[in-house]
Amino acid sequence: MTDLPGAETHPATLIADMGARARVASGVLAALPTPRKAAALVSAAAALRDAAATIEAANREDMARAAAAGLSGALLDRLRLDPGRIAAMADGVAAVAALADPVGQIMDSRARPNGLVLSRVRVPIGVIGIIYESRPNVTADAAALCVMAGNAAILRGGSEAVASNRAIHAALIEGLAAGGVPADAVQLVPTTDRAAVGAMLKAVGAIDLIIPRGGKSLVARVQAEARVPVLAHLDGINHVYVDASADPAMAAAVVVDAKMRRTGICGAMETLLIDRDYAAAAVLIERLAATGCVVRGDPDACKLVPEIAAADAADWDTEYLDAIAAVAIVDGLDGAVAHIARHGSHHTDSIVAADVDVAERFLAQVDSAIVLWNASTQFADGGEFGLGAEIGIATGRLHARGPVALEGLTTYKWIGRGTGQVRG
Amino acid sequence: MTDLPGAETHPATLIADMGARARVASGVLAALPTPRKAAALVSAAAALRDAAATIEAANREDMARAAAAGLSGALLDRLRLDPGRIAAMADGVAAVAALADPVGQIMDSRARPNGLVLSRVRVPIGVIGIIYESRPNVTADAAALCVMAGNAAILRGGSEAVASNRAIHAALIEGLAAGGVPADAVQLVPTTDRAAVGAMLKAVGAIDLIIPRGGKSLVARVQAEARVPVLAHLDGINHVYVDASADPAMAAAVVVDAKMRRTGICGAMETLLIDRDYAAAAVLIERLAATGCVVRGDPDACKLVPEIAAADAADWDTEYLDAIAAVAIVDGLDGAVAHIARHGSHHTDSIVAADVDVAERFLAQVDSAIVLWNASTQFADGGEFGLGAEIGIATGRLHARGPVALEGLTTYKWIGRGTGQVRG
Repeated sequence: MTDLPGAETHPATLIADMGARARVASGVLAALPTPRKAAALVSAAAALRDAAATIEAANREDMARAAAAGLSGALLDRLRLDPGRIAAMADGVAAVAALADPVGQIMDSRARPNGLVLSRVRVPIGVIGIIYESRPNVTADAAALCVMAGNAAILRGGSEAVASNRAIHAALIEGLAAGGVPADAVQLVPTTDRAAVGAMLKAVGAIDLIIPRGGKSLVARVQAEARVPVLAHLDGINHVYVDASADPAMAAAVVVDAKMRRTGICGAMETLLIDRDYAAAAVLIERLAATGCVVRGDPDACKLVPEIAAADAADWDTEYLDAIAAVAIVDGLDGAVAHIARHGSHHTDSIVAADVDVAERFLAQVDSAIVLWNASTQFADGGEFGLGAEIGIATGRLHARGPVALEGLTTYKWIGRGTGQVRG
Repeated sequence: MTDLPGAETHPATLIADMGARARVASGVLAALPTPRKAAALVSAAAALRDAAATIEAANREDMARAAAAGLSGALLDRLRLDPGRIAAMADGVAAVAALADPVGQIMDSRARPNGLVLSRVRVPIGVIGIIYESRPNVTADAAALCVMAGNAAILRGGSEAVASNRAIHAALIEGLAAGGVPADAVQLVPTTDRAAVGAMLKAVGAIDLIIPRGGKSLVARVQAEARVPVLAHLDGINHVYVDASADPAMAAAVVVDAKMRRTGICGAMETLLIDRDYAAAAVLIERLAATGCVVRGDPDACKLVPEIAAADAADWDTEYLDAIAAVAIVDGLDGAVAHIARHGSHHTDSIVAADVDVAERFLAQVDSAIVLWNASTQFADGGEFGLGAEIGIATGRLHARGPVALEGLTTYKWIGRGTGQVRG
């Protein structure tokens, strides 16, 4: 796959130039009324549908190259586009057009004693860089969310998906242009040179926020190298704590769903913590193992159910993303909270309990972006939260936490309206 | 001045250890009800008043050392504490106790169709590092704001104020302890070694947020070196744009106040932009010059008022913090917006105009943390905004913009309350 025009430029120069053009486009986007942005996205969705054959052909190119390079079946599946997936991608773009627009929302407003009226108003962040791996649908999903929130996007997808991404991007900007969005609002980095990623990470002033979408090694690199702020999560080492007061049927249903519904997502449970006083602990562990989950227990858990394997120290800090769970017996709420404080990744943790006081203490004391009571950790998802599509889940402490959707892609400014007030 | 115990430790180890103790204290603080935090701050204010003689004696030590080292009068004035300033510092701490507590506020709440109730609730950020210069009152101000918002603080003041800071810190933690706040909630870095600042800036995981309080060189160093997120502003290159539709008396009052009320604060106007069609331009420039302001004009401004000096290219990018202003004649709103986009620092910009449409376009298009209409830029202040005391003004795009007060020192978590929901 040859690079596009511009790829021969020095990476820092390339990204600075793309950023400058994105900044101009972001000014246009910030001023676009909601119906204009929505119409542009509907038009982009239509353009994706119209370009389905072209996108499929490009994807076949990528697939052939990936197969020849010996990529694994799972990676090939992520890369693959078919008519159903292309239609779903177009539907996703159209769905973003229907979301409530946070831009222009008045967060609060106050009249000061001197008559000055001060309001905080949501505005776009500006220019957002998205760095992702093999799934080509991210090109459309991320672009749609950025545009709806009034931001320009600079997209850098995986090299294995380069033909697919270019075909999707070409359709997108053609559709967006018909709706009045400038082409520079959504730019695709024209080179697969990894130095371009480094340049994005250091583009302070040109890019306002970086969102990595992909596996742990990508996120770790971005977090380690970035000078631009990053919204991301590195790990989803999520816990379910089953309190002595838990209803056994509910505990079993929540634990099995949290672990086994989909094992490869960041919201999956990785560690089960069981209160030493919970009577049905052995039954719960056996129930989980019976679903096909490999269970690794601490000494107390192994005593209860001798069939399970022994966990080692690394298990408590491992995101399996697989049908494997670590199980520890803890001394009540305090034991659970201490375990999560030590081993958790501040993503999503849940308690199953009938005792309201215990549950509320768990919700208050566990320092994670999402804390749940009597619900599966697999609800950690923008759609399930009623936020619409999400751009990702953030476990940092600033700006946006948990599922990040349109509102997380905005910031605010203060607007003051006076009648000649001076401070005097 | 000798270092305190702990100062001989390697800076990275020292900060990691302080951070670990601060993390434990932040857990205690996060759970403290508002009246407990308020009572602790009232007690700290009383302790500061009780320790006034000790603080004054310590300050005399710092002043003698600073005078011997040849510090300038302005620096000595910043360093100096007297009974009035100590009383004002204590009053400031007590005033923070009276502010509305953002922690625990429910930002929004939604019941999902499956019955899961999801709320976003404000929580403290965690551990905040404050790096400041010669003003010892920052020790008390910053600590009070951090504690009221439920955060632990790690304070690193200027080496010239080390005795004053230690005396203030000792009084503070004694008072806070009487109110039930752990001593590790407010820690003072025990060494004046500059390497400790570097260690704070890199303490990802130990410190959640760094706030520099001081001059441009401090902020620039912090922004360049920090791996921890930073809330700050580097410059306040603020503009007042006087539109053709402006009332001349209002324009003169706003411009003179914005520039001359206090010239050394970050909210002071540095550049005056005048619409080419504004009839009273010469009068306005002469009025500003008559207040004792040195005016440097672009060629068109110099033609209108030949007595003023000619600005050079650097003037448009200079924060004078003095009785100096640059003046440019611009082509209406678009000229003003373009000038601000090119030279502004995203801090505070104001338009004086009678034309509502022009004013609203300015407020929408100028990309600054604070945009004002018919009001002086000197209102850029948390107190004037009705937020209570501010920890600083931020010009970054994420998390908090403009005056950062208690709410800006919090983040949120998602709390979901269910009845056994599984995703299925």
